[in-house]
This record gives sequence, C-alpha cells and structure tokens, in this order.
Amino acid sequence: MPPLAKVPGTQYDKATPGKQGSAKGQGQGTVNASELDTPAVTIDLDVVDRNIRRVQEQLDAFGVANRPHIKTHKIPWLAERQRAAGAKGITCQKIGEAEVFADAGFDDIMLTFNILGDAKTERLAALARRLKKLTVVLDNDVVARGLSEAGKRHDVDFRFLIECDTGFHRNGVQTPQEALDLAQAALTMPRLQFDGLMTYPKGNLDKQRDFFQRSVQLFGGAGIPLPVISSGGSATVPNVGELPMVTEHRAGTYIYNDRMMVAAGVATWDDCAMRIRATVVSRPTDDRAILDTGSKVLTADLGGLTGYGRIVEYPDAVIDRLSEEHGMVDLSRAVERPKIGEIVHIIPNHTCVVTNMFDEVYAVREGKVEAVMPVAARGKVR
Amino acid sequence: MPPLAKVPGTQYDKATPGKQGSAKGQGQGTVNASELDTPAVTIDLDVVDRNIRRVQEQLDAFGVANRPHIKTHKIPWLAERQRAAGAKGITCQKIGEAEVFADAGFDDIMLTFNILGDAKTERLAALARRLKKLTVVLDNDVVARGLSEAGKRHDVDFRFLIECDTGFHRNGVQTPQEALDLAQAALTMPRLQFDGLMTYPKGNLDKQRDFFQRSVQLFGGAGIPLPVISSGGSATVPNVGELPMVTEHRAGTYIYNDRMMVAAGVATWDDCAMRIRATVVSRPTDDRAILDTGSKVLTADLGGLTGYGRIVEYPDAVIDRLSEEHGMVDLSRAVERPKIGEIVHIIPNHTCVVTNMFDEVYAVREGKVEAVMPVAARGKVR
Repeated sequence: MPPLAKVPGTQYDKATPGKQGSAKGQGQGTVNASELDTPAVTIDLDVVDRNIRRVQEQLDAFGVANRPHIKTHKIPWLAERQRAAGAKGITCQKIGEAEVFADAGFDDIMLTFNILGDAKTERLAALARRLKKLTVVLDNDVVARGLSEAGKRHDVDFRFLIECDTGFHRNGVQTPQEALDLAQAALTMPRLQFDGLMTYPKGNLDKQRDFFQRSVQLFGGAGIPLPVISSGGSATVPNVGELPMVTEHRAGTYIYNDRMMVAAGVATWDDCAMRIRATVVSRPTDDRAILDTGSKVLTADLGGLTGYGRIVEYPDAVIDRLSEEHGMVDLSRAVERPKIGEIVHIIPNHTCVVTNMFDEVYAVREGKVEAVMPVAARGKVR
Repeated sequence: MPPLAKVPGTQYDKATPGKQGSAKGQGQGTVNASELDTPAVTIDLDVVDRNIRRVQEQLDAFGVANRPHIKTHKIPWLAERQRAAGAKGITCQKIGEAEVFADAGFDDIMLTFNILGDAKTERLAALARRLKKLTVVLDNDVVARGLSEAGKRHDVDFRFLIECDTGFHRNGVQTPQEALDLAQAALTMPRLQFDGLMTYPKGNLDKQRDFFQRSVQLFGGAGIPLPVISSGGSATVPNVGELPMVTEHRAGTYIYNDRMMVAAGVATWDDCAMRIRATVVSRPTDDRAILDTGSKVLTADLGGLTGYGRIVEYPDAVIDRLSEEHGMVDLSRAVERPKIGEIVHIIPNHTCVVTNMFDEVYAVREGKVEAVMPVAARGKVR
C-alpha cells in the first residue's frame, strides 16, 4: 500500500480529505479501504456527514444549541465539520483535549469535568486566556474555591455551570436546593461567573425535567438567572424537545454511532460510520474463530450488550471473550462461518472507547481511503 | 513541577534512571512522586527489581529458560533489566512491538501470534533479517503457507512453534495428533524450520502436562525432535517445575503484578509495582466518591474480580462503575472515606492493559521520580 498523507490535526481547515491529505493527491493512486492491513479503523465520511446533519436539524428544530462532545472522535477536522453544520462550540472532558482543540482554532469550549489542583488550574487559566469562551463545570465548593484562587492569580474569570445528578448517579449536586446553595456560595468568590446548570442524564427524562423545573423556580425566586441549561447524550437527542428549559445539548456518539445507539433505537446499522477491519487468524474448532482484535482494539466495554461488537458479515457470530490481542468468536449459532485469512468488519459496542485505542483512523468515502486522520486528542488523560 | 527527562525507548543501555534520564541529572532538583499530577502511573523500581529476580530464580531452579512477555510494560529499558537478570530473549504479541524492541537492540524475539497477510509477512521477513533469532508461532496451515511464501520471496527462513490449546480455548491445535499433522505438513514447505510446541495454558496444569506428554511420545515416534516446549503465564510460574518437558516459560505480568496476581495467590500487595495516582474530584453523596480515573485509565477489564481496582488507602471502597473519565466509588462498606481533593493510589486489576493506555509512566524509587519512561510499544495494534 502506498503511504497515505495525514490530515494534520492542527490544520483541519487547510487539509481536506479529497484535496490535501488524500492518497490521490500524493500521486500514489487511489487506495481502497479493502487494502488496509488489520486491525484498522475506518470512518465512512458520507455516514458522518449524514449523522452530523440529522442531529443538527433535530436540535435546530427544538431551538436548542448543539455543543458536540469531541470525545467520540478526538479529531479537530471532524469537529470542524460539526461546527460548519451549525454547532455552537464544543465539549471536552479533559484539559489536554481542550488544549488540542484550542491549538486547532476552536475558541468556544466547555470542559465538563471538575478541575482540581494547581497543576490543572494553571493550565486552565492559560487556556481561558486563549479562548473566546471557556466554560467549566463543577459540583462542589472545593473546585469552586480552587478556580477562584487561580482566577485571582492569573487575572482571568472562569465561567461555570453547576453539574446536577438527574439520575445517573455519577457527579452532580443531588437536589435543586444544593445547586442553589452552591451557586450562591460560588457567587461570593472572586473571578467566578455563574452561567447555569448542566447534567448528563443517561436517559432519565422525567427526573431531568423535574430537577430543572424546580431549579428554574428556585433560582428565579432567588433572582439568579440561568442563561444556560445544558443536557447531554446521543440517545436522548430525540427527547430534548420535551425539556423546554434546556438551552443547549451535548452529544458525542451520534457522529459515528455504534451498537449501543442501535440498541437504544436511535440509529440503524447504516448510521454506523465506524468499522474495525479484523482478520480471522485461526479456526481452532468448528464453533470457534479467532480474530486479531482483542481488548486493545475493541476494549472490554460491553455497554450492557452481549458480545464485544457486531461482525457485519456474520451477525449471528458472537465475540464472546477477549484477550488483549485475541477476539474469540462463538460460531455455534452462525450458519455461515468464516475461513482463516478472511477479513471481517466489526461495528463496536461503543465507538468513543475504540477511538482512544488508535493513533490514527482512516477516512473513507465509497470504499476509497481519502486520508489518514490522526486521533490528535487520543490518550489525553490529564 | 520541573520537566522530567525521558529514558529514550531506543537507548535503554545509555539512559538509566538515576543517571541520564533523571530529574536530578537535569539540575532541576528531585521530584517526588507525590507531586505528580493525576491520573499518573508510577512504577516502583525496587519492586520491579525484586519481581524480576524472584521469577528468574524460580525458573532457573526449574532449569527452564525465561522468555518474558513485554506486553506488560512495553518499555525496552525494563526488558533490558529482565535480560540482565538472565532472561533468554523476549516475547512479543505484535510485529509492531517486535519492531520497537528490535530497534532497541533485542535480537532474540518470539512472536506468539498467527501472522497472516502480505502486509505483515513482508514486515516479518524484514524483521527476521535484522534479528539473531526470530521465532513465530502458528496453529494452522494457512499461516504456515503464507510464511513459507514470504520466506521464498525474501530468501529468509522462519523458525516456528506450533500453538497448542491446552484448555484455555483460545488459539491452538486441539490435540497432539493435530500438532503432529500440522508439523509434518509445514515441514514440507520451503523456508520453515520447526522448533517445537507452545501453549498459553491459563492454569490447566494437568491438561497441559497430558497434552505435552502425549506430544513428546507422538513426535518421538515420528522422529521429529522438539527442541522447544514453551509454556506461559505469570500465575503458573510456581508450577512450571511440574512440567518436566517444558524448556522455556513466557511470563509477563510478574514484573509489575496486579490485583489478579494477588487473587491468584502468586503475589502480595507489596509485590505490586504499579500505582495509578487518582484525585477524588467529587463526593456527591456520603456513600459515593468520584475519581478522575475511568475506563480510559483503568480499562473495563474486570479480570473476574469485583470492582475495577484496589484503592490502597481505602481498601473497603469499591470502584464499582466506570465512565471513560470517571471512576465511581461505592463507599458504603468503607469506615474511612476520602475528602474532595484527596489523592489516592490504585492497584489495577490487570497491569498490562493499563500500560497500553499511557504514553509514558514514571519510574520511582523510594518515593522519588527517577525518570519518565515512554511506553515505546504502546498502541502497536498491527
């Protein structure tokens, strides 16, 4: 295979698959996705474009701002497509991700994670200086005080939302009253600007609505405006219209979709843009195949499903066990069975986690590789 | 924190923690592990040295060659310590890993994975040329034919073992007769040299012994020597002496150890060299803490255990759910409970998979950071 050019992660606006960054542009001839060695991740750009458009239209129809979560792809060039379609800013989970996207020219970033400790608040202050708008999220006064101190040290203001636990039982204040108490405490701290509320609901529509309705009443009574109420999740996009107080939505997975989204009923297999190319390296028994894709590729994330991904060519086969480099496939319910050396394509349970396992993924359109996309924000653990 | 120097992955013999590559050597003053921002992985070098020595002595006592699996650390500098202690060559799982270690000067490498397809056999032939000794492993004739063809094209011989399934139900021929049939078929193919048998037993000592005993008889009867019989696994090291036909052993995890090794009874907590530093970023309820370490750090690998790692300071706390960036901790059975902002240390369920999530880890001795070690073979999926 001829070497493919890269889409520079920091120059997404200059390198476009099909123009710079394409195999064709290198005078090397076209490369077909079917020539890629395995394991490899391909991203179908036509599906991506359709997914971007559909969710943008849904949120537009609800009058809700779209602030996509970049954790799913970690690639500035794809975030730029989301922005071009109408997204208002982006969401990141780690400062290291936000730094990569700031380098790539994104200037409206929300960081949905409690930022704690001097090492991180120093970086956050530097980031705040570079961006047109940086919003952070917090759910306790320790984080608020740390941000206030860093703001004073560096002469910057931090705009923040309060994270609310509306049923997922992860982060977040537990009640609207707690949200109000925390907002009032933080409003006394220098360098903090309160912007509203945020949640990652994980499906609990009624609880989310109740929490936000009571919050609107409480904050209204206290004379504190709530300019932003931010919800999240790809599976919940169709329901955002039932939350009239929500002003913006953060979805990630919708750009690629995956087996979890199909199971949730918000995507079809045709809406899944990511494929993992895998080789059948062994058929030790009639009922078993071994793939060259283990947990180092698919991850051990089951996402509540049976098996570690759907094999497109053999949908009745079950990837039922993983070692780091081996995918063990139970063929006992499969009528058709693959041969050694055959290449198959897997739709993963959860795209976001697979993204983080690869330094680069292949952008494909109609079976042709248009570019190699470096996963610029991969592995940003801090 | 002052910038730390790196131990170049390809110059392990020149850069030694404490000499080059140390923070002190850079005139920056000593850095304590307690100053490292989270999440971060620390590796205690004293524990590493003790673990290396213990397993080397055990295998020496059995008269079995030690061929450590580098997947656990993916760091040439640490493999060099294993070699210096007496290891005969190393084991890799991917060509990309073997290439990194060949670049670092390792010249006796076993690749324990079926290598299939021209893209890979081309790289394998190039690798064979560079190394004093390359051994591959196969369990079917499709792989054997592909290697033979590549050997002919490139004028190199491939030395191979046959992988045997001795009870793990992953790769491998199913019976000694199948092993013999495959060896005889492969021996008719040009450029292939048969070296013996290999298994990853995953514990089934009796099955492994039976399989190898019958194989020795069968191959003996057919006049085919078995110079190498290779077993593997860290938990099985103490039992290798009960397999008199075994000539070499491949263990990986023993260099770091982890919660799975402690559960298997072959290590104590003091033998665990890897710690993940994590910050408590939220205490949304009395019974719940949130850490800044999710599946992007700990991975979703449960390894048959309850919870995603042991919190050293709070052993009764259970990391019971993970998102990508959040570790959700159930404190209901914990008498002592952490505060927001507190830093805790996690012993992971499975060290090998955590290694693959980090671009670099910190080498620590007596609480001092001696160097940053790049995880040179991280993410080598092909």
